[in-house]
Amino acid sequence: MPEPVSATVRELKAQSGATGQPFASLLVVRKLATKTASNGNPFLSVDLGDRTGVFSCTVFSDNVAFEALKNAGEGAVVRVEGKIEQYQGRLSPRLAKVAPVTEAELARPGVIDNLVEVSPEDPAGLERELAAFIEGIGHLGLRATVKAALEDLGGAFQTAPAASLMHHAYRHGLLEHTVRMARAAKALAALYPEVNGDLAMAGILLHDSGKALEFEGALAPKRTRRGLLQGHVVLGYQLVRKAGLKAKLDPEHLERLEHVILSHQGQLEWGAAVLAATPEAVFVSMIDNLDARMGMVQRALRQTADGEEFSERLPGLDTQLLTRPPGKPGA
Amino acid sequence: MPEPVSATVRELKAQSGATGQPFASLLVVRKLATKTASNGNPFLSVDLGDRTGVFSCTVFSDNVAFEALKNAGEGAVVRVEGKIEQYQGRLSPRLAKVAPVTEAELARPGVIDNLVEVSPEDPAGLERELAAFIEGIGHLGLRATVKAALEDLGGAFQTAPAASLMHHAYRHGLLEHTVRMARAAKALAALYPEVNGDLAMAGILLHDSGKALEFEGALAPKRTRRGLLQGHVVLGYQLVRKAGLKAKLDPEHLERLEHVILSHQGQLEWGAAVLAATPEAVFVSMIDNLDARMGMVQRALRQTADGEEFSERLPGLDTQLLTRPPGKPGA
Amino acid sequence: MPEPVSATVRELKAQSGATGQPFASLLVVRKLATKTASNGNPFLSVDLGDRTGVFSCTVFSDNVAFEALKNAGEGAVVRVEGKIEQYQGRLSPRLAKVAPVTEAELARPGVIDNLVEVSPEDPAGLERELAAFIEGIGHLGLRATVKAALEDLGGAFQTAPAASLMHHAYRHGLLEHTVRMARAAKALAALYPEVNGDLAMAGILLHDSGKALEFEGALAPKRTRRGLLQGHVVLGYQLVRKAGLKAKLDPEHLERLEHVILSHQGQLEWGAAVLAATPEAVFVSMIDNLDARMGMVQRALRQTADGEEFSERLPGLDTQLLTRPPGKPGA
Amino acid sequence: MPEPVSATVRELKAQSGATGQPFASLLVVRKLATKTASNGNPFLSVDLGDRTGVFSCTVFSDNVAFEALKNAGEGAVVRVEGKIEQYQGRLSPRLAKVAPVTEAELARPGVIDNLVEVSPEDPAGLERELAAFIEGIGHLGLRATVKAALEDLGGAFQTAPAASLMHHAYRHGLLEHTVRMARAAKALAALYPEVNGDLAMAGILLHDSGKALEFEGALAPKRTRRGLLQGHVVLGYQLVRKAGLKAKLDPEHLERLEHVILSHQGQLEWGAAVLAATPEAVFVSMIDNLDARMGMVQRALRQTADGEEFSERLPGLDTQLLTRPPGKPGA
Amino acid sequence: MPEPVSATVRELKAQSGATGQPFASLLVVRKLATKTASNGNPFLSVDLGDRTGVFSCTVFSDNVAFEALKNAGEGAVVRVEGKIEQYQGRLSPRLAKVAPVTEAELARPGVIDNLVEVSPEDPAGLERELAAFIEGIGHLGLRATVKAALEDLGGAFQTAPAASLMHHAYRHGLLEHTVRMARAAKALAALYPEVNGDLAMAGILLHDSGKALEFEGALAPKRTRRGLLQGHVVLGYQLVRKAGLKAKLDPEHLERLEHVILSHQGQLEWGAAVLAATPEAVFVSMIDNLDARMGMVQRALRQTADGEEFSERLPGLDTQLLTRPPGKPGA
Amino acid sequence: MPEPVSATVRELKAQSGATGQPFASLLVVRKLATKTASNGNPFLSVDLGDRTGVFSCTVFSDNVAFEALKNAGEGAVVRVEGKIEQYQGRLSPRLAKVAPVTEAELARPGVIDNLVEVSPEDPAGLERELAAFIEGIGHLGLRATVKAALEDLGGAFQTAPAASLMHHAYRHGLLEHTVRMARAAKALAALYPEVNGDLAMAGILLHDSGKALEFEGALAPKRTRRGLLQGHVVLGYQLVRKAGLKAKLDPEHLERLEHVILSHQGQLEWGAAVLAATPEAVFVSMIDNLDARMGMVQRALRQTADGEEFSERLPGLDTQLLTRPPGKPGA
Repeated sequence: MPEPVSATVRELKAQSGATGQPFASLLVVRKLATKTASNGNPFLSVDLGDRTGVFSCTVFSDNVAFEALKNAGEGAVVRVEGKIEQYQGRLSPRLAKVAPVTEAELARPGVIDNLVEVSPEDPAGLERELAAFIEGIGHLGLRATVKAALEDLGGAFQTAPAASLMHHAYRHGLLEHTVRMARAAKALAALYPEVNGDLAMAGILLHDSGKALEFEGALAPKRTRRGLLQGHVVLGYQLVRKAGLKAKLDPEHLERLEHVILSHQGQLEWGAAVLAATPEAVFVSMIDNLDARMGMVQRALRQTADGEEFSERLPGLDTQLLTRPPGKPGA
Repeated sequence: MPEPVSATVRELKAQSGATGQPFASLLVVRKLATKTASNGNPFLSVDLGDRTGVFSCTVFSDNVAFEALKNAGEGAVVRVEGKIEQYQGRLSPRLAKVAPVTEAELARPGVIDNLVEVSPEDPAGLERELAAFIEGIGHLGLRATVKAALEDLGGAFQTAPAASLMHHAYRHGLLEHTVRMARAAKALAALYPEVNGDLAMAGILLHDSGKALEFEGALAPKRTRRGLLQGHVVLGYQLVRKAGLKAKLDPEHLERLEHVILSHQGQLEWGAAVLAATPEAVFVSMIDNLDARMGMVQRALRQTADGEEFSERLPGLDTQLLTRPPGKPGA
Repeated sequence: MPEPVSATVRELKAQSGATGQPFASLLVVRKLATKTASNGNPFLSVDLGDRTGVFSCTVFSDNVAFEALKNAGEGAVVRVEGKIEQYQGRLSPRLAKVAPVTEAELARPGVIDNLVEVSPEDPAGLERELAAFIEGIGHLGLRATVKAALEDLGGAFQTAPAASLMHHAYRHGLLEHTVRMARAAKALAALYPEVNGDLAMAGILLHDSGKALEFEGALAPKRTRRGLLQGHVVLGYQLVRKAGLKAKLDPEHLERLEHVILSHQGQLEWGAAVLAATPEAVFVSMIDNLDARMGMVQRALRQTADGEEFSERLPGLDTQLLTRPPGKPGA
Repeated sequence: MPEPVSATVRELKAQSGATGQPFASLLVVRKLATKTASNGNPFLSVDLGDRTGVFSCTVFSDNVAFEALKNAGEGAVVRVEGKIEQYQGRLSPRLAKVAPVTEAELARPGVIDNLVEVSPEDPAGLERELAAFIEGIGHLGLRATVKAALEDLGGAFQTAPAASLMHHAYRHGLLEHTVRMARAAKALAALYPEVNGDLAMAGILLHDSGKALEFEGALAPKRTRRGLLQGHVVLGYQLVRKAGLKAKLDPEHLERLEHVILSHQGQLEWGAAVLAATPEAVFVSMIDNLDARMGMVQRALRQTADGEEFSERLPGLDTQLLTRPPGKPGA
Repeated sequence: MPEPVSATVRELKAQSGATGQPFASLLVVRKLATKTASNGNPFLSVDLGDRTGVFSCTVFSDNVAFEALKNAGEGAVVRVEGKIEQYQGRLSPRLAKVAPVTEAELARPGVIDNLVEVSPEDPAGLERELAAFIEGIGHLGLRATVKAALEDLGGAFQTAPAASLMHHAYRHGLLEHTVRMARAAKALAALYPEVNGDLAMAGILLHDSGKALEFEGALAPKRTRRGLLQGHVVLGYQLVRKAGLKAKLDPEHLERLEHVILSHQGQLEWGAAVLAATPEAVFVSMIDNLDARMGMVQRALRQTADGEEFSERLPGLDTQLLTRPPGKPGA
Repeated sequence: MPEPVSATVRELKAQSGATGQPFASLLVVRKLATKTASNGNPFLSVDLGDRTGVFSCTVFSDNVAFEALKNAGEGAVVRVEGKIEQYQGRLSPRLAKVAPVTEAELARPGVIDNLVEVSPEDPAGLERELAAFIEGIGHLGLRATVKAALEDLGGAFQTAPAASLMHHAYRHGLLEHTVRMARAAKALAALYPEVNGDLAMAGILLHDSGKALEFEGALAPKRTRRGLLQGHVVLGYQLVRKAGLKAKLDPEHLERLEHVILSHQGQLEWGAAVLAATPEAVFVSMIDNLDARMGMVQRALRQTADGEEFSERLPGLDTQLLTRPPGKPGA
């Protein structure tokens, strides 16, 4: 038996035909369900994945991997050894060994980055920039409100994705999208003097804060109970309201800040609770649009292979993006 | 000069051609704006109306009615005397005298009913029925929450219209629509056992409570500042949350009750903050649809003249309603 | 060779990996097509299923099952023996024996229930209730019309599904949905006195009667020729018209009853021929909405596994349903 | 007092400023309602018009025209004498004399043509062409069905408008639109051999026949009771079904002919009961679209003044039409 | 007869009731049509307006103003004297004298500003800024293309409105909107490095250039023939293509620049010829959205009277704007 | 080893179960991508197809087919030998030999027809008919413009598909659709005299000419770079503009011809740059609709198996088509 090759899911899938080839991979348990075969024996139906893809397989109770997977549970990271099989038309390896991964191993540089897609910007830098934007808010009540709201979220704001599907849909994506919007607002501040800068900045920093409550599970995010029953707009509104009361923000600024949160989705059918009716609310919803759309462009540029002229069709843009810059050979 | 005839706005409008005919009417000041003519003199542009219609006219500063109207202000009820003129293509009487109306006069039976459209059901009876529905809620926390929310509104819940345009759009309309939905829910309770009756009843009683905050001005309602900045769904949600916390309602029931409020509009584009995701929320939003639509039917039946086979085209139904019951002579 | 295990389709699918395992199942022939291989030999492409799922497989002409399946035909119930194979990425067993199932066997309790999804309510009870609702119609012409229409359908009304996809989409579903709407109408009758009760009840009992003609094949329903060329609204209208003429229903009641059928879908784009323009038609279309939506809720409650907090995403509700009742441990 | 000038409504309206100018016109009573002034006296609110326009005025009971108008009734043609007044911002003449018009007068050439917009093609010629198209149907059952259906309508088919608003919306418009579609179908027959010519021709001749029942009142058309309760698609379907049964048309051809009627509106939201599912039904619905749209073009060409380069904005085309042909001076 | 008072249209309308009052105003001939009265005499139907409003009146051929207006023609500026009348329900003065206005008079400061709404920014300053943005384009071919395109338009680009209805819909509005977008792009350049700055800037400067061809008539703009037949997107594309060929811009940059023009409307239903498929095109379309929406906010802030808390309902925002800044007394 | 059987893709797929069966087929290389396995070795992921279907397979670098496929490239036609395997749930043969196909072989009758779907009409005949329609254009400038535009396209117009998905989506489809529309226009010419025949004919012949530039690759068509960046409407407009200038067509006819191209898609959301605003443009867009829809009908009739009463559900018609003609046994 040859040495197991360390491989990503994308690499494993590329080896169609290499049946029996041993491998070893670090993977996230994306889904895990216990079922019962007709002979009465239990078996596991499990989805394993990393940032390059996901595959499903079945593990019977006489396999040593059975107990290890059950103990690990959904969302865990495990080291998997096995042999490649295409048993169900798609990759479906036979697992030979499953071992838990220690916190220390996970913390090593690059490890998490290989397991889930992360923001291309350095999270630590983004956090420092966020802190600076907060300090830049001159209105004391607004500044205190932003701090109180983020504190209330613990670290969830810093790691949450910005969306489940469309834009900045990856670890630290919410932080990245928020900071990028703050940069844009700062750059544009002088051009739109009718917009109160402190209100707009506080509104931007908190506009999507409800998303940190709408999803859970850093490695295998899914919608929470309150995400389903209230939605991120109302969750964010409630978070901001609580923070504003705690920070003793005057009622007028609080009302305007709440309005930015309630209206930032732009249209009722996109989830806004009301339509934007203050200069700040209109401004924030338009900056949100701009950065969300540009975020899709940036992600497509990162993910399109070097030789390709156009990206795949992008759902958010409804077309394929020309990914080669002007003047580059081959264009 | 003949005796002034006491006339409704509909009657005044029917007298096109009767220029110079004196009249006297009890009217609401619906809109009032002071403008300046090019000669520098101020004049009033005023809308006066009762439940049968509205007309506009102009009052110059040398008219004795000028000061009386200015003092009365928007939303006031005044006794107006004048002469019919059709001066601007539409009815535009020349006002001769405007006098305020005392509280005592307004309180006389039938007076308010002639000034604004009111619920066809007796408000006092509706209030008693509302109280009985509240007492019928078995779950103590839910019952206390409903009471606390309505208390918080003072009497606004009892007099507010249920909508600005489409259904139950008249004084006591919110109370009437709420009680009718409660009756329907009670009647249907046995048929849908998967629906928790106490939750559904509390949800119905409070589903539109935010409307009492969205509009103001019993005689000439217009959208409030918070109505424009938050909308009745979020206003109702916040009212219920506050009441639930005050009544120490357990978090799970509170979350479900809030969800009923947030989702009762049915579709995001109709203003729902989230889509109904509990049996109670689906049930309440469907009962709301049913009674709103039947309310349009009932209003059209009341307002269509006796001889007519069909109503006017109704915006909410997008057709004309056959108003003559089956078997009636003439059908 | 081990004893064949009696298994449902869901169980067979759960045994991925159990290649070669013998089984025996009672299945419906959902689709059956004869094709010709490039060597000129015929083979069958067949879909077999029960209420838990469906799989496809191929049967060559040298297989003894070939003739048995051809003779059985689409929509038949057969006893199948074979061995599990996952030959095409999905379950694709090798069939060893196919035998027809007698009427007597099919009539045994629970047999049909395992083959197709059926109404959760007892069909015999529903039929008795239907009869009582008919007898409760006071207007002789309307009562006779309902009877004549249902008689014309033979037993098709009692077994048809209420929809192909969305709600009450199972055997006896039409009967169940109709009776449930009748119960709701009866419960609400006192609240909407402007609605003629007999007309509304007759309209409810017949509103979807065209569906019994739109689909055929109790075990593998598909749209009929007239279902495709006329649609259930016009089929129901024509059925009711014929019944009304036979029952000598007076023209005015017939016109109003026909209007209920023609308008019950609510919106033109949902298939209504005209918009509801009588109190009865508005009432019936709203009750239809209410019960259809609640039917989706009830089905999701039945089908969601006990441990799950939320159902799968439901197309008709466009969200996931919270399936755990309030106050239940775990909530 | 000068001689009354014979004037059309358009001419009367052009004379704004000519107050007191006597006139005499032949007009249709478009609407007529008796109302009561606040002094208890009755008065008439009346709309009078011809093909060039319409105006409203009020007639009090002491005017000799009062009784004459009441006796004439809605839809009648009357000779009116009076003086121009602009009493309500718009033309509102003072009527001095109203006299009924005899059948003989109405039958004089050009008289009706001045009262209502009529087809620009000669109705007698259109009727002969219709008869020829009917005779050209080779299939005996289809031919007999078309004859029976048109016979059932009496002369209504020949004079009805084809629409209330959008295209061929004038007297004989239905006849004109039908004959034009028949010409187009005949011209295209050789190009689409998969279309059964007899079925398509019968379908075209009857596709809008329900419109002759949907509207009533040749001079002042309004929607009928059955037009509101059933719509022209179902009315046409029922008419054709009855005619087919009478003509003993075989069931298969009848089913296909009915399907053409039921589907010709093209989309459910435009009123189709089902979507076109036979070659003939697709063909007829597309020819209908083509001629309806070209009918709007033709009407705009007729109605745009000679000097104008573009028509008014046309609702059916959603733009202005360039009405000057290419190469014409001025272009 | 008193001295004629110099009055704006808004002031004239405010004087309802002041019949007979003489006035003198400087007005634009917005629409002018010659019609024939039934007595064969010609008369003029004319719309006269300034930036505060517009009114219609009729001028007969025996009025000395008749010839003067005919000679002036549509779009001209005239000095009008007359007396106030409300002859048609709305203001409809009797004109006594109409005199042409010299170029010199029009050029006087403030004169044009009173006749049509103009950009709130100084046009000369905007033009200088535009020139600087052009000079800032580093890529020689792109810079030359922008220059050639603007040169081709003569001065039309500098005075055209940016829209007929929604945003920056006033004289110099296109220039203002373009410069504001250029400022925003420059401010954001560092944040979106994947966007080629020269391409984006050239795209912004030319994105709406077709609008200078879509409308004509600085004082009474209406859609041109080519505006109706091609639309501003294709007109701009063709202008840019011609300019690019003239400036010998390399094909790749020209293709990308053309794509920005063709796609800047964002959605097909808003008039885009294709969807944005390069980083520059996405960027420009989003900046366009942002500035258009903020332009509506700014205009509402300018136009709402000081005492008002909310603006009128704004069609582009679909709500009323809160116009009072936070912290201001009264809020 | 048995003789390889010559088989189409549909036949190969029908032989599920015939693992190991040798075959030889003529196939198009639809997609070809080089990837790297985790062991560092390159392999090909390739899609092979003919007009009956397509399959994917993987070819490793130690297979002799590896180099042959790489050399052939995407879009090439190759002769493939191998053995049937269903290795990935779907057909995935093991390739043994891949050889290029000579031009001479491809030119043999029927060969291309087996590789891609082609127009059912004889292309040579269609080309002759196209030439005759061109010669029939009386206006010299229009005729020369059509010739110049088609010449500019080389032979691309004659082989291009008319659409990627919906109608006439096959080789020569554009030619076929164009000629069919020209036939229809000629047949209808006498009925719509307001339509300039030469303009309409030139417009029809060129309306979709941009599609010859929007797609490339006769055997495996995909959207070109300019197809993605400009779309077929603008590509066709530019082609026609260039041809018109070359042919010295007078500006007025050129403007009208361009307008037909720009508006033929009918609605902005379907890709029209402007709405049809000339009689010719309305006419061409309606004929386009008619023939496109009838083209879907004809294709469904060709592709539905003889025994079937209804086609599959057709996306363009949104229903199933009744494919059996009236009167045929079995109906």
